[in-house]
Amino acid sequence: MCSVIRGVKPVQRALALTLRARAGRPENRRSCPGIRADVGPQLRPFCCSGTAMTEGLLFRQLFELESSTYTYLLADTETKEAILIDPVLETIDRDLKLIQELGLNLKVAVNTHCHADHITSTGLMKKRLVGLKSAISKFSGASADIHLSEGDKITFGKHLLTVRETPGHTDGCVALVSGDQSMAFTGDALLIRGCGRTDFQQGSPEKLYQSVHEKIFTLPDQCLVYPAHDYLGQTSSTVGEERKFNPRLTKSLEEFVKIMNNLNLPKPRKIDVSVPANLVCGVHEV
Amino acid sequence: MCSVIRGVKPVQRALALTLRARAGRPENRRSCPGIRADVGPQLRPFCCSGTAMTEGLLFRQLFELESSTYTYLLADTETKEAILIDPVLETIDRDLKLIQELGLNLKVAVNTHCHADHITSTGLMKKRLVGLKSAISKFSGASADIHLSEGDKITFGKHLLTVRETPGHTDGCVALVSGDQSMAFTGDALLIRGCGRTDFQQGSPEKLYQSVHEKIFTLPDQCLVYPAHDYLGQTSSTVGEERKFNPRLTKSLEEFVKIMNNLNLPKPRKIDVSVPANLVCGVHEV
Repeated sequence: MCSVIRGVKPVQRALALTLRARAGRPENRRSCPGIRADVGPQLRPFCCSGTAMTEGLLFRQLFELESSTYTYLLADTETKEAILIDPVLETIDRDLKLIQELGLNLKVAVNTHCHADHITSTGLMKKRLVGLKSAISKFSGASADIHLSEGDKITFGKHLLTVRETPGHTDGCVALVSGDQSMAFTGDALLIRGCGRTDFQQGSPEKLYQSVHEKIFTLPDQCLVYPAHDYLGQTSSTVGEERKFNPRLTKSLEEFVKIMNNLNLPKPRKIDVSVPANLVCGVHEV
Repeated sequence: MCSVIRGVKPVQRALALTLRARAGRPENRRSCPGIRADVGPQLRPFCCSGTAMTEGLLFRQLFELESSTYTYLLADTETKEAILIDPVLETIDRDLKLIQELGLNLKVAVNTHCHADHITSTGLMKKRLVGLKSAISKFSGASADIHLSEGDKITFGKHLLTVRETPGHTDGCVALVSGDQSMAFTGDALLIRGCGRTDFQQGSPEKLYQSVHEKIFTLPDQCLVYPAHDYLGQTSSTVGEERKFNPRLTKSLEEFVKIMNNLNLPKPRKIDVSVPANLVCGVHEV
């Protein structure tokens, strides 16, 4: 049995297995709520720098102050179908209130990886919103309703996000890229003028360097970068900027590995609580 | 002599007088760097909710953690002309580095009002960027290169922001509204699900209520609200949302006044330092 569904109740395991869509094997892809393996019609990209620009898209960036985590709410303004990226336990009431006020139907709460610095609110949110599905990479080791693979599509109304696997910070990191490639939610793989650390949780500077260069830096210059964290009050960047100014990822692989292996950072304060909790969708099981 | 230019050197006083454009008296309006009193062509609005959507606009929201202040950088992606709203002294190096990296020509640094909770970086920034002009309401009591009045236009490339006077938090508060009315930088007049306090610096709940209802709530529903502060990790809202969900400004005037007069908030920690400094463009004179 795959580790990603260990510890999950049988019915949930069956659901997870059903929902799983395999990268590079389109014949195996199944339709599931909010997830589409086929490529939908490309939405019209709108050339700009610094703002999310997709027509009919509701977009809201939210910040959790203690862990400096960004949560992203995206919705189709017509159908009201919505998804939430990287929600944090401490801000669940704020987020649910906003979703309720905006009259949204939250379909999927997705984590870009199994976080070590905060506890996800996905599990608790599922208890409070009927029909909500949790999603995370199949390589994360975490239980969830939906296990994501390279190329999977998370749909909400006429919009979609495509999964790009970006291992390196952890094995189960993904970036989520909008259909028109105007936005990339990069998790901890690429931060604004920085990147996630690689010294725990399967961290590998070599893998991270390859992931960012192959999966993120290949996006258009004007594609907005929305990271999982920022510690300096920056809210967004662009692929073009990071390709040019990121102080780590503009270096050679050898220099990058040397930088990452010599950061000497303290262990995240909450890692011993957060990781076990996030392996089961926060403090609650799926 | 008007108090707004007291304490300013003669050459700067002459500049300020030259640059001043009077509300409701278009015949008196003069052309000055970055400020236009005539109405430019309306830029195509792009219907959406939650994202700034003006074509060819570079937009960047920045946050200062100590005072929870948002700074906004806007630029024309073609001409590279830029403006900065509410820059904070503590983050001047971050902001100048970004401006330099993006190759922008910062024309105007504007404060939405004379802040009591932090010191503006406008004065110091002027020393480091040749040609930069500071701007603030003519009713702020603060010195600056440009004193703003109702209806003034701050231009950068093909874009513009229109000044709407919004007294109430202070006498010299302004909101800045993009030419296509897709964005409003509301300062402390309207916050997300809140508003600025009215118990010091010429504060008046009656004036604030009138300002928000007449100058901000008259904007289109989908117009994005970008406030000067947020304390809960919210980055933006819309006029439609605030008109519907703002817990204070959805009340009657009488109820609003009662709420505002009974907030019993502590005095801002930095008010005795910030206000005198901000009256002269931060710690440095213009």
